[in-house]
Amino acid sequence: MDPQSLLARRTQVFGAGAALFYETPLNIVRGEGVYLFDADGRRYVDLYNNVPCVGHGNARVADAMARQQATLNVHSRYLHDGVILFAERLVGLQEARLESVVFSCSGSEANEVALQIVRIATGKRGVVCTNAAYHGSTETLGAVSYLGRRKRPSDEVRTFPFPETFRPLAAAGGDPAEPYLERLRVAIEELEGTGAGFAGLILCPLFANEGLPDIPRAFLRRASDMVHAAGGLVIADEVQAGYGRTGRWWGHDGTGLAPDVVVTGKPMGNGLPLAATFTSRDLIDRFRARTRYINTFASTPLQAAVGMAVLDVIEEDGLLENAAKVGAALKQALEQRRSRWPRIGDVRGAGLFIGVEMVAEGQDPSPDLGLAPDPALAVEIVERLKDRGFLTSNAGAHGNVVKIRPPLVFSHQNAADFLEAFDATMAEIGG
Amino acid sequence: MDPQSLLARRTQVFGAGAALFYETPLNIVRGEGVYLFDADGRRYVDLYNNVPCVGHGNARVADAMARQQATLNVHSRYLHDGVILFAERLVGLQEARLESVVFSCSGSEANEVALQIVRIATGKRGVVCTNAAYHGSTETLGAVSYLGRRKRPSDEVRTFPFPETFRPLAAAGGDPAEPYLERLRVAIEELEGTGAGFAGLILCPLFANEGLPDIPRAFLRRASDMVHAAGGLVIADEVQAGYGRTGRWWGHDGTGLAPDVVVTGKPMGNGLPLAATFTSRDLIDRFRARTRYINTFASTPLQAAVGMAVLDVIEEDGLLENAAKVGAALKQALEQRRSRWPRIGDVRGAGLFIGVEMVAEGQDPSPDLGLAPDPALAVEIVERLKDRGFLTSNAGAHGNVVKIRPPLVFSHQNAADFLEAFDATMAEIGG
Repeated sequence: MDPQSLLARRTQVFGAGAALFYETPLNIVRGEGVYLFDADGRRYVDLYNNVPCVGHGNARVADAMARQQATLNVHSRYLHDGVILFAERLVGLQEARLESVVFSCSGSEANEVALQIVRIATGKRGVVCTNAAYHGSTETLGAVSYLGRRKRPSDEVRTFPFPETFRPLAAAGGDPAEPYLERLRVAIEELEGTGAGFAGLILCPLFANEGLPDIPRAFLRRASDMVHAAGGLVIADEVQAGYGRTGRWWGHDGTGLAPDVVVTGKPMGNGLPLAATFTSRDLIDRFRARTRYINTFASTPLQAAVGMAVLDVIEEDGLLENAAKVGAALKQALEQRRSRWPRIGDVRGAGLFIGVEMVAEGQDPSPDLGLAPDPALAVEIVERLKDRGFLTSNAGAHGNVVKIRPPLVFSHQNAADFLEAFDATMAEIGG
Repeated sequence: MDPQSLLARRTQVFGAGAALFYETPLNIVRGEGVYLFDADGRRYVDLYNNVPCVGHGNARVADAMARQQATLNVHSRYLHDGVILFAERLVGLQEARLESVVFSCSGSEANEVALQIVRIATGKRGVVCTNAAYHGSTETLGAVSYLGRRKRPSDEVRTFPFPETFRPLAAAGGDPAEPYLERLRVAIEELEGTGAGFAGLILCPLFANEGLPDIPRAFLRRASDMVHAAGGLVIADEVQAGYGRTGRWWGHDGTGLAPDVVVTGKPMGNGLPLAATFTSRDLIDRFRARTRYINTFASTPLQAAVGMAVLDVIEEDGLLENAAKVGAALKQALEQRRSRWPRIGDVRGAGLFIGVEMVAEGQDPSPDLGLAPDPALAVEIVERLKDRGFLTSNAGAHGNVVKIRPPLVFSHQNAADFLEAFDATMAEIGG
């Protein structure tokens, strides 16, 4: 099909507003490692897709998938070794108290389970999230998503401003974490006041949707202490942050955040729908007793075989180390470019998850200077990088962050190629 | 692993109460067509699983899955021919006004989309469902599931008793549909009274979870007329009822129900997580404009390739015809057994979806006789059939219906083998 008729037919069958990337959408037909190929055979370096974490078209994953689908793929109400071994292996990657798991098919389903666990455990309904979070597409998760932009929170939800050091809230006492902790404290208090009560806090430990900010030191540890002191539970939504993305298994590793529930999704199955919610045996038992939760396509031999293959590749090919090393080098290289192109306001991130914040002014970041986010510039860079064969997107609370989040097999050479394209793009637009 | 340690490890990692079938759970390791095999090599005829609709381990589906996963499996924000062709083919199986589709990964996700569509379209929140429906595992869908059993409906939900001719509500005027329509009318009226307003009715056209009842003639047509007259929309939850199960594509075909939204799931991917919500272009556009719905694992080349392969097998192998013919013969044979074993209260269903209702008394069904449902007997039959190598389950509002819902490749010989086992079981327990 030619691109125009493809687009028209897509709009008819999926509706207007079915999201597409780029001004002229790509017609991608094949993937291999970090590369995507369009219908004309043009090659793109993929710096966007975290789902195919071990690479597009990974043969070991495809083989495991084919073998298991041809052997057995059935629901979870029969015993099956493979499913249990996969669950045990994943639980082994978590802190000891997160000893049990509920599998599902998407981050949305897994976050639904997480909220239900927290609400059942506490007997309360109220949840705190940030003002620019996204946690999923169900009605319940819609209530804790995009609250800063278009909606007033319901009686069961309160927000606090996501913590950041780039445009920080003014801190009277000098500790930049304080104003955010204070807003969190107020949010908890307000929920107690609505009658919903305070059930817990849900957040992405990297605040990925918010724009991957650097956050005030110790904020996550102190926030989780505050939640626990108030009788609430902490949900770490690791759907984007986890599974080796940062060079560690989980985005909250080393932050002091002590989650009671951990949610993971996107990269688990290299494209097979697969997600999971981890918590204590006690909370899982109470969740199961109350809900009799069943998920037809989850906890299947197919999910287990594919999930195991993905873990095998991550471990055997050293992809955490790769993410840490290549990511650190790429981040450093991008940081060095700030002096050359002042409209790069900030470079942030960990491992192979990097955000480049574009601003309208060129000065050093400071709240007093009122550095304006420049989403149009971010979009322009994303478009021009795409024209050069490099796929990124723009993200963040202001839409002005160029988001770099490639498959974990992204190499030093890929990074070097990208930097060349980035430099040419910035030079072109007069950075 | 030996069964006991497998079970203990499963309970630890998934929690107590993670559902298992049968008193002594099966350890299934392989599937082929209508057969499942346990770790000891014992063969079972599968009369339960509707998900592997074209047969366990179907090679054409596994091949299509492997080929696409090795070629490309990526999210839906690039153009892709395969995804559009699959969507168009599915829409072609629907009535003309259901011209657009939203893909997702599970029946729960697809019913979530359906409810959101209906609520956005009407600007109202209130939904009517039956008193024994199950529509999914999210919080929102939990509010329209199992309401007769354990919960009071929220302000946004009202129930009506599922229609049936076996234990009918008393009909003053003689028309057995009337009392159910009256209760539906009251439910709609009450929702208008709560301030939620009336958004729509959600039902499974076969009332599968309710126990697959025979329903009063014209009830579905008149119910959908009533909903439309009240300004509401009708959601047909075809997750169990649809995709050829009845020998027709959709459970509501020929019933007079005029759904505004159709939801399908389980069998679409022969085990790959895949579900869909169909509605008009206008309603899809309004849904997309409001929600900017994204589903990472849905509308992918993998879903499309696998879904296409399933449709190919269904059509090329004539599985609708097979379901109609084998199902009709099996139902007739079971009906004939009612005179021999009076504890078979009723035999119901369409195509390869049959329910055998077990009762404590042997008389002909009549509300005055108060024929008591006998769930313990149904469970005993299910267990003994399993011991003989035939897998069924018990279902229905009273848990007393032996549920027969095999893969669509179930043959006349499979039916004959099952009937032999069924007769032996009934003889053993003294019918």
